[in-house]
Amino acid sequence: MTQEQDRQYMELAIQMAAATTGQTSPNPHVGAVVVHQNEVLGMGAHLKAGEAHAEVHALNMAGNRARGGTIYVTLEPCSHHGRTPPCAERIIQSGIARAVIATLDPNPKVAGQGVQKLREAGIEVEVGLQQEEADQLNQVFYHYISTNTPYVTMKTAMTMDGKIATTTGESQWITGEAARADVHQYRHANDAILVGVNTVIQDKPRLTARLPDGGNHPTRIVLDTHLRTPIDSPLIQNPDAPTWILTGNQVEQDQIDVYQSYPHVEIIKLSHETIFIPDVLTLLGDRGITSLFVEGGAQVNDAFVRAGAVQQVIQYIAPKLLGGKDAPTPVGGEGIGELQAALALEITEVSSIGQDIKVVAKQKRQEG
Amino acid sequence: MTQEQDRQYMELAIQMAAATTGQTSPNPHVGAVVVHQNEVLGMGAHLKAGEAHAEVHALNMAGNRARGGTIYVTLEPCSHHGRTPPCAERIIQSGIARAVIATLDPNPKVAGQGVQKLREAGIEVEVGLQQEEADQLNQVFYHYISTNTPYVTMKTAMTMDGKIATTTGESQWITGEAARADVHQYRHANDAILVGVNTVIQDKPRLTARLPDGGNHPTRIVLDTHLRTPIDSPLIQNPDAPTWILTGNQVEQDQIDVYQSYPHVEIIKLSHETIFIPDVLTLLGDRGITSLFVEGGAQVNDAFVRAGAVQQVIQYIAPKLLGGKDAPTPVGGEGIGELQAALALEITEVSSIGQDIKVVAKQKRQEG
Amino acid sequence: MTQEQDRQYMELAIQMAAATTGQTSPNPHVGAVVVHQNEVLGMGAHLKAGEAHAEVHALNMAGNRARGGTIYVTLEPCSHHGRTPPCAERIIQSGIARAVIATLDPNPKVAGQGVQKLREAGIEVEVGLQQEEADQLNQVFYHYISTNTPYVTMKTAMTMDGKIATTTGESQWITGEAARADVHQYRHANDAILVGVNTVIQDKPRLTARLPDGGNHPTRIVLDTHLRTPIDSPLIQNPDAPTWILTGNQVEQDQIDVYQSYPHVEIIKLSHETIFIPDVLTLLGDRGITSLFVEGGAQVNDAFVRAGAVQQVIQYIAPKLLGGKDAPTPVGGEGIGELQAALALEITEVSSIGQDIKVVAKQKRQEG
Amino acid sequence: MTQEQDRQYMELAIQMAAATTGQTSPNPHVGAVVVHQNEVLGMGAHLKAGEAHAEVHALNMAGNRARGGTIYVTLEPCSHHGRTPPCAERIIQSGIARAVIATLDPNPKVAGQGVQKLREAGIEVEVGLQQEEADQLNQVFYHYISTNTPYVTMKTAMTMDGKIATTTGESQWITGEAARADVHQYRHANDAILVGVNTVIQDKPRLTARLPDGGNHPTRIVLDTHLRTPIDSPLIQNPDAPTWILTGNQVEQDQIDVYQSYPHVEIIKLSHETIFIPDVLTLLGDRGITSLFVEGGAQVNDAFVRAGAVQQVIQYIAPKLLGGKDAPTPVGGEGIGELQAALALEITEVSSIGQDIKVVAKQKRQEG
Ligand SMILES: [Zn+2]
Ligand SMILES: [Zn+2]
Ligand SMILES: [Zn+2]
Ligand SMILES: [Zn+2]
Repeated sequence: MTQEQDRQYMELAIQMAAATTGQTSPNPHVGAVVVHQNEVLGMGAHLKAGEAHAEVHALNMAGNRARGGTIYVTLEPCSHHGRTPPCAERIIQSGIARAVIATLDPNPKVAGQGVQKLREAGIEVEVGLQQEEADQLNQVFYHYISTNTPYVTMKTAMTMDGKIATTTGESQWITGEAARADVHQYRHANDAILVGVNTVIQDKPRLTARLPDGGNHPTRIVLDTHLRTPIDSPLIQNPDAPTWILTGNQVEQDQIDVYQSYPHVEIIKLSHETIFIPDVLTLLGDRGITSLFVEGGAQVNDAFVRAGAVQQVIQYIAPKLLGGKDAPTPVGGEGIGELQAALALEITEVSSIGQDIKVVAKQKRQEG
Repeated sequence: MTQEQDRQYMELAIQMAAATTGQTSPNPHVGAVVVHQNEVLGMGAHLKAGEAHAEVHALNMAGNRARGGTIYVTLEPCSHHGRTPPCAERIIQSGIARAVIATLDPNPKVAGQGVQKLREAGIEVEVGLQQEEADQLNQVFYHYISTNTPYVTMKTAMTMDGKIATTTGESQWITGEAARADVHQYRHANDAILVGVNTVIQDKPRLTARLPDGGNHPTRIVLDTHLRTPIDSPLIQNPDAPTWILTGNQVEQDQIDVYQSYPHVEIIKLSHETIFIPDVLTLLGDRGITSLFVEGGAQVNDAFVRAGAVQQVIQYIAPKLLGGKDAPTPVGGEGIGELQAALALEITEVSSIGQDIKVVAKQKRQEG
Repeated sequence: MTQEQDRQYMELAIQMAAATTGQTSPNPHVGAVVVHQNEVLGMGAHLKAGEAHAEVHALNMAGNRARGGTIYVTLEPCSHHGRTPPCAERIIQSGIARAVIATLDPNPKVAGQGVQKLREAGIEVEVGLQQEEADQLNQVFYHYISTNTPYVTMKTAMTMDGKIATTTGESQWITGEAARADVHQYRHANDAILVGVNTVIQDKPRLTARLPDGGNHPTRIVLDTHLRTPIDSPLIQNPDAPTWILTGNQVEQDQIDVYQSYPHVEIIKLSHETIFIPDVLTLLGDRGITSLFVEGGAQVNDAFVRAGAVQQVIQYIAPKLLGGKDAPTPVGGEGIGELQAALALEITEVSSIGQDIKVVAKQKRQEG
Repeated sequence: MTQEQDRQYMELAIQMAAATTGQTSPNPHVGAVVVHQNEVLGMGAHLKAGEAHAEVHALNMAGNRARGGTIYVTLEPCSHHGRTPPCAERIIQSGIARAVIATLDPNPKVAGQGVQKLREAGIEVEVGLQQEEADQLNQVFYHYISTNTPYVTMKTAMTMDGKIATTTGESQWITGEAARADVHQYRHANDAILVGVNTVIQDKPRLTARLPDGGNHPTRIVLDTHLRTPIDSPLIQNPDAPTWILTGNQVEQDQIDVYQSYPHVEIIKLSHETIFIPDVLTLLGDRGITSLFVEGGAQVNDAFVRAGAVQQVIQYIAPKLLGGKDAPTPVGGEGIGELQAALALEITEVSSIGQDIKVVAKQKRQEG
């Protein structure tokens, strides 16, 4: 293989992995290609937790012809028995002679073990080809593996003067259709979506992923200290996805009983009187939520900002000016008093979306 | 000439014109190139009101050799006697055989007259080459000519959640150095800069164009209904540029007399008790201010927004989240109550500037 | 599905198909993706003649979950029993609800039949998405299907003054390493490679595809009217690929017997005294050669040019000047006497390759 | 000034200089801009040998306002009295405080002297801004200054198989209209054009620059060892430009007398029996020819190639195949026998021009 060919095959593996956005949680996105003598013999991606890993799809397709060939994988093959047998062993059995791996397993407990197994079996292993692109695929997975809490994406939509509604509270249709459709992609791609109870009361949202061809509805999470979520809320009446209502510890059992007849609804009492964001994240992580999409409102957003618990911001800016000292802004609440203490981000993408602008920013890495 | 050569010569004329940003007011930016038999014989731009027009520079340089040649001008040559004799006559006298003009004079009273004069003298005239680019050069001039009021550019600098300061009022250094330096270019390029008296009291700004190599200080304008501008304000103490303080009609003469000893300061009583933006714009237009740079604060910005009097917004967005229900936003005041009534803009430029984003938006054209 | 999602899934199918260059002959390159509710359920490409078609790979991976989903295929699914059962039936059985097809089958006898079968079974079918890109994948296949003769690619390598060797005949290393490596990709991707007997005698080539990781060696074809190919030629001594020597009809059997002991060598007498290119192409087409890579020399190239039998030219130009009235050029022989009769091409790609330039040109389509 | 502003003003100076292609020989292309406090006060380019230098145009336009300002010049200001007084002194007198210079004078006898004079006068001088782009403007000038021989550009037009004509000699219209028009730009931009006498006899060319709006006709040079140029050649009959016929030393005076009545024609006997390219270049250099455009034919081109006397090749490639062992190629003659000795070039530009390709290559720099 020339370097250019290596790059092309890994690129194909990455593209197959990228196509699985929103469907592999809590597993990462992985693609694999098997090649021998410049012929592609197998290709595959991991499609669904519990099902075959990417390497298995690709090696099954290749069959005996894999012997002596090269496998390209976007992530280090697993080396431990999980819901499926370890891929490292599967690769060894296939007779593969060379493995090109984009990036190591992010779990420090097992990182490098897959590579070691392959090398011990005499397979030539190269690590690091297209690593940056491969890492990009699995940001959520990496965050979850290393923190056991979900990767938090906060979404805001505002005017050019930072307003999410008029002074009179009118907020529908700040942004255009394209931006609103884009939001549903994020709902589809995240394990859970979170709002405050005020949003539930005022906007009566459904919080489902309404893509043209369906989509995965995220688990719906409400921060509701005093358990005020109305029974007639779409989140209660519509059973399309689980609804978890997180409350403070003062909520009474008879309050909770009201929701008993809705099997998709669960009331979860946290351990303090008020709701602390770190508690929320720990709970969600323990329950297997790897990615969380926070859709406000202003007070809930503020709690996440002050907790420093925002990995990514998706911001839609509409080319309008509204004005108004009292018009609400995307992040309200108490706020941060000192400029030095502001949650620092870095812009990773700016693009046009319909008439609006979309800005993606990620939490700035601490410099050593 | 091939079309490609025509384009290249007009492009050179446009580039020369573009280099005169901030120095020709109230005149437009114009460039000219004289060519004969594929040789450039003259080039020039209009540099300063009252001085030679672009065509004159270019024709002077060409001298007798212009005879039979082509002149490229970014704007229709003037045909009336102003501070300088009409360029159309100068072109005719030079023996030029062909004139290529990017765009007509925006003043409907004289548009087309220059072309007509040239044609009557037997000169072949083409209009419209690179018109869009040429029009772009003179947006301010066109607005002023057609409305007799200044072209208003509003500048805002905010966090990703729409805050211009923390809840405790800390506002310095929201954006980075590159964004702040960029602002001085706009101050240099605008005839006047406008703030509210609260900004004068709180921030004590100088409002000068502090470019590395100097720059044109804009006329400094304060909206100050009750004439509260402190005598020790830099705007009063520093005579680098004229300071015009606009007040309501209830201000007493003895209040005004306090400022008498500062010859660069002028107190201008408007005709109503409170200040109306349309009155302000009419006054400034009458006084020859063609472009106005509005630097807030939130209440003044709101007045311009509600008056629909914003032609362009320059927005710097810092990748930070601050939160805070009471943290101030770029446009405050009373605001617009209905989303439908919001001031509609369209994005014309999005770019990176240091760590920040710069967004330029222009007022959306009414659709017929 | 939005149009953008449709486009992305078809793009993935095209990329998988494109990865199979050089391995599917005489079959086309085809990729398929199965999607339901925004989840990818299966993906695959046709890898090898006689093995599963792309649709089968993708549907096998999807299993029962395909029901109600969409299949994206880069080429119309087959509807007739060949070496494998018809894919149209397989799609119908899978319960797929919608099929998006990039382009119809190029074989006029069956074009549209696959689509018709699907529609009769109630499947919603769309044809034409990314058609141009999909057609690009299978130019060779389309040419072969419609003419029953191979798609001819002529390769030349010359200096900037059109020389393939010095006046003294020195010709090695005209172009750089990158260009020479690129040639092996074409050998790998073509079914057969063709040279004249003079090239065999002078250059003693092996004509194999020497890629870093192996490759498919093309069938080696020699135009040799009088059967002068030396027994010690690598083409005879090296059995890596079949060698077919095409001769005129005057060759004697005892000449042929000399080659008898080399089972990979076949001597094929054509029906005329001299060799006609159309006869060659018909013979090769009948023997299943879909693509032919012509590597000269000058006289053989000339025969193809004068026969108008060149679909594509791959030209490497080295930035050197050699001069020499008698230095050989890429296409020699008798030539075309009138400029009007020259073989007309159109440039489709120009790129840098090492220090050299690579130009790809295709035969110009006759305009109606 | 910020670096970005410096860059923009120098860019404007470069663009003005670039617009003077073909009109300043034997002088270089130079542009200048004078700026003070972010206002452009003057701009100009050197237009014609013997006329004002760029700095003078720009400083004249600026007048007294130049005092304290910055001048941007694309080439080091001259420091010696030539046909005009030295620009270094003119700059010093103007009161300029800072000079930004793209590149030093290429003449080693005077390089740095202009800068030194300015510095001795207390002017702050920076050298090297946009140097590469500025050097690009004056390649011809630099070559001429350092070798006292013209910069040689060889033009070829051929088919994809390296033919400049069919075997029957038909050569008109090998390339399309756009390529042929492009050639006239080069004729306009070069001081002289050179062909062999065979071309004169066969093609009867005029060798003028026929641009849509006129152009500078280059001096026409014929290599004609035995003085066979026919009297009825357009080069003799058409007096649009000087015609110099270079002959060997065996030519008789009565042969020469035939041309006496054509004042634009000069017969120049060289010192050897045959014509040596180095003699030609020395002669032309001494006569002030800074740039030479060689338009063949094959034998003359070969003489230049074997002499290593080609600085630049402009090659037009038509997407046609002609074939023909005896069809002529761009560089004929004796040629270079060894591949190692080939004239080595490097590609600097590849572009489409109409249906054809244009390749620009420059002589490869010797590596130390
Ligand atoms: Zn695995
Ligand atoms: Zn004028
Ligand atoms: Zn099939
Ligand atoms: Zn000078």
